[in-house]
Amino acid sequence: MPHDFDQAILLAPAGGHRFDGATHAAYANMVGPFGGTTGAAMLNAVLLHSERIGEPIALTVNFASPLADGAFEIEACPARTNRSTQHWQIELTQNGEVAATGSAVFAQRRETWSATEAQLPPDIPPASALRRMSQAGFPAWVSRYNMRFLPGFAPGPFTGEEQDHSISRFWVRDEPPRPLDFPSLAAICDCFFPRIFIRRRRPAPIGTVTLTTYFHADTPLLAQQGDRHVLGLARGLNFRNGYFDQTAEVWSDDGHMLASTHQMVYFKE
Amino acid sequence: MPHDFDQAILLAPAGGHRFDGATHAAYANMVGPFGGTTGAAMLNAVLLHSERIGEPIALTVNFASPLADGAFEIEACPARTNRSTQHWQIELTQNGEVAATGSAVFAQRRETWSATEAQLPPDIPPASALRRMSQAGFPAWVSRYNMRFLPGFAPGPFTGEEQDHSISRFWVRDEPPRPLDFPSLAAICDCFFPRIFIRRRRPAPIGTVTLTTYFHADTPLLAQQGDRHVLGLARGLNFRNGYFDQTAEVWSDDGHMLASTHQMVYFKE
Repeated sequence: MPHDFDQAILLAPAGGHRFDGATHAAYANMVGPFGGTTGAAMLNAVLLHSERIGEPIALTVNFASPLADGAFEIEACPARTNRSTQHWQIELTQNGEVAATGSAVFAQRRETWSATEAQLPPDIPPASALRRMSQAGFPAWVSRYNMRFLPGFAPGPFTGEEQDHSISRFWVRDEPPRPLDFPSLAAICDCFFPRIFIRRRRPAPIGTVTLTTYFHADTPLLAQQGDRHVLGLARGLNFRNGYFDQTAEVWSDDGHMLASTHQMVYFKE
Repeated sequence: MPHDFDQAILLAPAGGHRFDGATHAAYANMVGPFGGTTGAAMLNAVLLHSERIGEPIALTVNFASPLADGAFEIEACPARTNRSTQHWQIELTQNGEVAATGSAVFAQRRETWSATEAQLPPDIPPASALRRMSQAGFPAWVSRYNMRFLPGFAPGPFTGEEQDHSISRFWVRDEPPRPLDFPSLAAICDCFFPRIFIRRRRPAPIGTVTLTTYFHADTPLLAQQGDRHVLGLARGLNFRNGYFDQTAEVWSDDGHMLASTHQMVYFKE
């Protein structure tokens, strides 16, 4: 049986640069679908496109309006193809109205000098030593991830007492396990709870307006990771007059940075 | 006399969503123009557009090919307008070929609870206590900025001896001074030297493929800053097989985060 995630990002070619898809109940959010699967479906349109070259380097998804549950159409157009890079413009519509826009950079990578500069926090226990977060009270999509927060870096309790940071640290994988690929990595990059919930220790009306992910992993590195938990590190930088940004890193369990990801989020009050 | 920066981002309405512009010799880079002015011109197209609401929240610019010196055309289309937010798709062409694509989120901000979570490094001397970096040997655009690096965080010397970080810290303003606005802030977000030059202490063939900037400043905060130096903090997170990301913050001289900005950069060897 295919994984629910594959169902959620499943696309049928609809002629030209167009693909037909639909939201999936297993990845439902409070309103409409989880943004991670929306972005992953947009990336998948490029991956499935006959003119695509190389692997994803960057993906930007702009959430222009809440998606409704049901069918959507994605158009992925190659804007420019160079010798080793390719730029894509992507648009997701529902009933002819734009619900999300995006862009992607793809490239054929070559082996070069490499170095990881960001550092992992010390003393990270393995995923196997931690308990899975309870999914009680969360929308459906949260149950599609196996999240194991490090002691002191869990999202709760929601006491309403503001703390001086919004840092989260946790292991995460698809539930049930699924080998990591570019779409699932893209979706994991949107699974970080909104930083304002952590900082103020209470939920608030929010909505991501734009999300950018940089892929450091290539296919061999993804294959090496398989379906084991990856490490997510997230924090907010600045909250001001209705918008905050959050920045996160996703690491393999053997110390490679797989992706860095940034978003700007609307919040109320 | 208008500032060269205003000349570099000057656009003439060309009907519909189109605007005509041209590169400016004062902001020339090694090949074609400085990417900061390209992105600022794309943002300016939205700012000048009659249907625009609010102020910029986010800007993504994808550099699809090197621009040639000379005329260009920008098309800025409102993809979706909501009550307080607006999503834009932007395309820059030269001779009918796509040279850059982009997207922007604009919004009407309201006053809310606010907090700055990122922290400034300790002991930052004021700009007035530091000497301006020499522009000798750099392309023209570098002379259009007054950059004053903090001791120990200058880009050189290029000894070729790799160091374990790629951090830069410096004060920067337009040269000659010009009051900060959204286009000039967007351009400053691309004035950070490529992290690989710092990390490996030597120049290398590079090219930014995509740049995303989040605007934390609104008009009152920009007005408060005026034409004084802002503080730039930049570092790389990961360098791997032809691409690295760099992440940076721009701060006002009274401790407000004005923008956070991220990019993915191609490198050779």
